[in-house]
Amino acid sequence: MLMGLVVGTVVSTRKEEDLTGLRFLMVKELDQKMEQTGKMVVCADAMGAGVGEVVLYASGSSARQTTVTKDRPVDAVIMAIVDMVQVGTDTTYVKP
Amino acid sequence: MLMGLVVGTVVSTRKEEDLTGLRFLMVKELDQKMEQTGKMVVCADAMGAGVGEVVLYASGSSARQTTVTKDRPVDAVIMAIVDMVQVGTDTTYVKP
Amino acid sequence: MLMGLVVGTVVSTRKEEDLTGLRFLMVKELDQKMEQTGKMVVCADAMGAGVGEVVLYASGSSARQTTVTKDRPVDAVIMAIVDMVQVGTDTTYVKP
Amino acid sequence: MLMGLVVGTVVSTRKEEDLTGLRFLMVKELDQKMEQTGKMVVCADAMGAGVGEVVLYASGSSARQTTVTKDRPVDAVIMAIVDMVQVGTDTTYVKP
Amino acid sequence: MLMGLVVGTVVSTRKEEDLTGLRFLMVKELDQKMEQTGKMVVCADAMGAGVGEVVLYASGSSARQTTVTKDRPVDAVIMAIVDMVQVGTDTTYVKP
Repeated sequence: MLMGLVVGTVVSTRKEEDLTGLRFLMVKELDQKMEQTGKMVVCADAMGAGVGEVVLYASGSSARQTTVTKDRPVDAVIMAIVDMVQVGTDTTYVKP
Repeated sequence: MLMGLVVGTVVSTRKEEDLTGLRFLMVKELDQKMEQTGKMVVCADAMGAGVGEVVLYASGSSARQTTVTKDRPVDAVIMAIVDMVQVGTDTTYVKP
Repeated sequence: MLMGLVVGTVVSTRKEEDLTGLRFLMVKELDQKMEQTGKMVVCADAMGAGVGEVVLYASGSSARQTTVTKDRPVDAVIMAIVDMVQVGTDTTYVKP
Repeated sequence: MLMGLVVGTVVSTRKEEDLTGLRFLMVKELDQKMEQTGKMVVCADAMGAGVGEVVLYASGSSARQTTVTKDRPVDAVIMAIVDMVQVGTDTTYVKP
Repeated sequence: MLMGLVVGTVVSTRKEEDLTGLRFLMVKELDQKMEQTGKMVVCADAMGAGVGEVVLYASGSSARQTTVTKDRPVDAVIMAIVDMVQVGTDTTYVKP
């Protein structure tokens, strides 16, 4: 999985029928220092995540293993909201 | 998924039989500011997308989960046309 | 899919039994201006492609969806020969 | 697989139900000289790995082939703890 | 597939049970000029390859299509030893 920051939403009405009801969120990848790497991916949201939250997202076929993405043409999904990150003995992130 | 701009078409008559009838579109990847990242991918088109449209595309095995790409040797598919992009509270793209 | 130029061949006699009879071609990735991006991949050839031809190739599990690659340990396959590329209203490539 | 150094942990209470009980570890990719490449991935832990250990991790659908990750939305898993690395005739790493 | 040079071995005793008996080799990616690109991957060895040999390796789910890797958490496998490489009309590599 990669860690990312939810920065926005993508709205689409004309899409594969299977995708009806799924939310698409823009996620910027974060490194272990919680800094943005510059990469952006659009994830289906299996968690009710919101803008500003730090999340874990899975890519590829693994993105179709959640209830909301099963058998759908989705290759990235938010599958966890991050509460805390520890690097060595430092706590580098705590969910506000 | 990644967000991209449809910039052109690729025509092929000599191809895997399974691919007959599929359209192939050239898509340039976009970042959250709607700027091109420099990467280009050729996507099968499940949506009737046209040059100039902003789309979402799925890669890998997920690209075979649409009706038109099922069981075909296709690793990238356009599965949504983007209507609007919001980053934080800003609307950065609205489909003309 | 990605677009590429066939530049050479890789010969191997000691290989997985399943691979007997498959040809392996070196393909350099092309961008929408038909310029090489610098990346090279070795593709199984499902099309009888030759050196100098512009092709489309699929990667990952999608590369096992052609007749010649089914259930084989192959992760890249040439599945179309490109006849023409159009970017906007310009024709940027026509097969000689 | 890629080789990596476990540098930290990611804690999440709000996550896909399937993920309950899985530990998530931050892993920095290493090259053959045991130097960090700069890439970071969050892996599910199938081995009881700890911070400071050198590990092998598998990505994509292969990450769902361990007992603890089967059918779960996980795209990276630690599947081995590295004891020793040999490059040519040099031993470049021995687990302390 | 990608072409690579076997440069070393990774030894692990504590690993997923399924992996018992598999050898792990460090492989540096090569381009069409037989120069290293800088990328390194650890491959399961389905061919009895040795340090110094030029090989083809498959990644992702395709890496689980060999007899020795079937259903195992392995995402890269050596599936061929390279005998000869031809770029255009030049022979750029012959196995010694």
